[in-house]
Amino acid sequence: MLRTPVIEVADGLWLKLELLQHSGSFKVRGAFNRMLSAGELPGSGVIAASGGNHGLAVAFAARALGTRAEIFVPEVTSPVKVAGLAALGAHITQTGAIYSEAAEAAAKRAAESGALMVHAYDQPEVVAGQGTTGLELMEQTGGVDTVLAAVGGGGFAAGITVGTAAVIGARSGTAADRAASVADGTAAGITVGAAGGGGPKIVAVEPERIPTLHAARRAGEPVPVEVSGVAADALGASRIGGLAFEILSGDRVESVLVTDEAIVAARRTLWERHRVAAEHSGAAAYAALLSGVYTPAPGERVAVVVCGSNTDPATLTTD
Amino acid sequence: MLRTPVIEVADGLWLKLELLQHSGSFKVRGAFNRMLSAGELPGSGVIAASGGNHGLAVAFAARALGTRAEIFVPEVTSPVKVAGLAALGAHITQTGAIYSEAAEAAAKRAAESGALMVHAYDQPEVVAGQGTTGLELMEQTGGVDTVLAAVGGGGFAAGITVGTAAVIGARSGTAADRAASVADGTAAGITVGAAGGGGPKIVAVEPERIPTLHAARRAGEPVPVEVSGVAADALGASRIGGLAFEILSGDRVESVLVTDEAIVAARRTLWERHRVAAEHSGAAAYAALLSGVYTPAPGERVAVVVCGSNTDPATLTTD
Ligand SMILES: Cc1ncc(COP(=O)(O)O)c(C=O)c1O
Ligand SMILES: Cc1ncc(COP(=O)(O)O)c(C=O)c1O
Repeated sequence: MLRTPVIEVADGLWLKLELLQHSGSFKVRGAFNRMLSAGELPGSGVIAASGGNHGLAVAFAARALGTRAEIFVPEVTSPVKVAGLAALGAHITQTGAIYSEAAEAAAKRAAESGALMVHAYDQPEVVAGQGTTGLELMEQTGGVDTVLAAVGGGGFAAGITVGTAAVIGARSGTAADRAASVADGTAAGITVGAAGGGGPKIVAVEPERIPTLHAARRAGEPVPVEVSGVAADALGASRIGGLAFEILSGDRVESVLVTDEAIVAARRTLWERHRVAAEHSGAAAYAALLSGVYTPAPGERVAVVVCGSNTDPATLTTD
Repeated sequence: MLRTPVIEVADGLWLKLELLQHSGSFKVRGAFNRMLSAGELPGSGVIAASGGNHGLAVAFAARALGTRAEIFVPEVTSPVKVAGLAALGAHITQTGAIYSEAAEAAAKRAAESGALMVHAYDQPEVVAGQGTTGLELMEQTGGVDTVLAAVGGGGFAAGITVGTAAVIGARSGTAADRAASVADGTAAGITVGAAGGGGPKIVAVEPERIPTLHAARRAGEPVPVEVSGVAADALGASRIGGLAFEILSGDRVESVLVTDEAIVAARRTLWERHRVAAEHSGAAAYAALLSGVYTPAPGERVAVVVCGSNTDPATLTTD
């Protein structure tokens, strides 16, 4: 994993450049943590369903660990991501209109093959792995008041919620402790469930057209939503994960929605102003800030996670 | 100025992401240092000739300091850069085929207007300012054995040569010292002329089609060369600067040449493997490594400066 950089683009405003991560998104953090926590991997390797980025991450981690990866992606997955999967040597099945349909097919196949399922968001090892992003950014910025992160199935924002709490609370320091916590299904001392006890505010940002967390918070439980819009191939889970819902129901978490237009504008601004080449989902958190959906108080220290870059760069200044 | 991030992309190999700098290149470091060292600026503001990036930097610094900027660019300057200059409110004159012709016109105009000339590479304040890149990367990596940097007029590589020596030698620590050294025409305690006394090897990388340093080292003095190729709008000085030649003639500096094909391949690899969107000149240093023109010894700690991003992203995967 890379310790991805942060840049302070204005006084008290940091961008965490997680889009520079191996495989182009934070998803390798959870994928590695899940695979390394499993002990010996089955001969049939690992399997995952994904809008694309999680698949790229699992394929990347599988190659690094010398095992086979089978990836199910829906039709909505962009050509850039399918090409990336092929380049990593993954066995690809493109099936179903959206993520949830590909996920059903993958679950069926896993039952036959015995491969290790690496879920895109709803496993403790995956959530803990993603959470190392939050831990890192707290160290790198010296601590912030608020973190903005995008939500699909919610594993990422949930991980950041617990990962930033871990920094405040007890954090096991030695390499041996960390290795032990990885073996536990946790990453870098992050324990899923430890989200209480203080830490920064987490602003969980979703597209208006895929409001999984928003709908679940209203309903009091995960409920299915329609999936569409510019970020559907990365934020296109049909419902929030169970683990994520539990963690993201906490007091520290604020749920906000952004329009597709705000995402497109934020993506363009990231390129034009900061030379950061994000995919749409990667720009969603920044969109909440730019569009004024979330307005920091004077002096509030804010980190925005820019989390994905698997995009055709030709579209940066046009779409 | 941003303290631009470094990422360790392989064991002992760092990329210094100077392309994320304000205005899209390191050039703001020298521009600010020159302008802040000048004391009060003339009513007619500042003037510069540039292939584009230096002009963008001067325009950016002028806007920040509330003064007027007049920028002369040659015909070879890319539309992306001209549009950027306009967006920054610079007064633009596009004249001459290559940089040296625009530079002549700018010098003539400066004599009339009395504006402060901010040279693209051949002023001590500019060289010292660029050198802060080297100082930063030594701090950020914990020290390297070798730094690869691109050469046009040579101010950047020369600055890095002195800036990395400054880290090893006496470096004034306090903010007051640094402010004093800026007033001296130095930046962050970097003194031009202090290039002796140890420090990493500097690999000065030039396109085969613009070998200003290479030709000067052969001739024993700066000599004019032909200017062409993919990086001509940034590395297209016709001869190495006098200051730069002096500094880059030192023992610590190795001069190497890369082909245009190697630059194109390196630029594409930076995007595909690391999601770093560089312009051609920004990829030249990495090209020396990728093409094997420079091969590190086992265990050698190497930093590559990726120094410019003012490019049309649509061309990243095609040109
Ligand atoms: C770039 C990017 N950002 C955010 C997300 C959302 O992550 P999660 O599904 O864990 O909420 C994804 C999921 O694929 C993603 O690829
Ligand atoms: C991106 C980039 N890299 C390298 C250089 C070369 O710098 P110098 O002219 O100081 O050698 C330039 C000059 O414009 C540049 O814009």
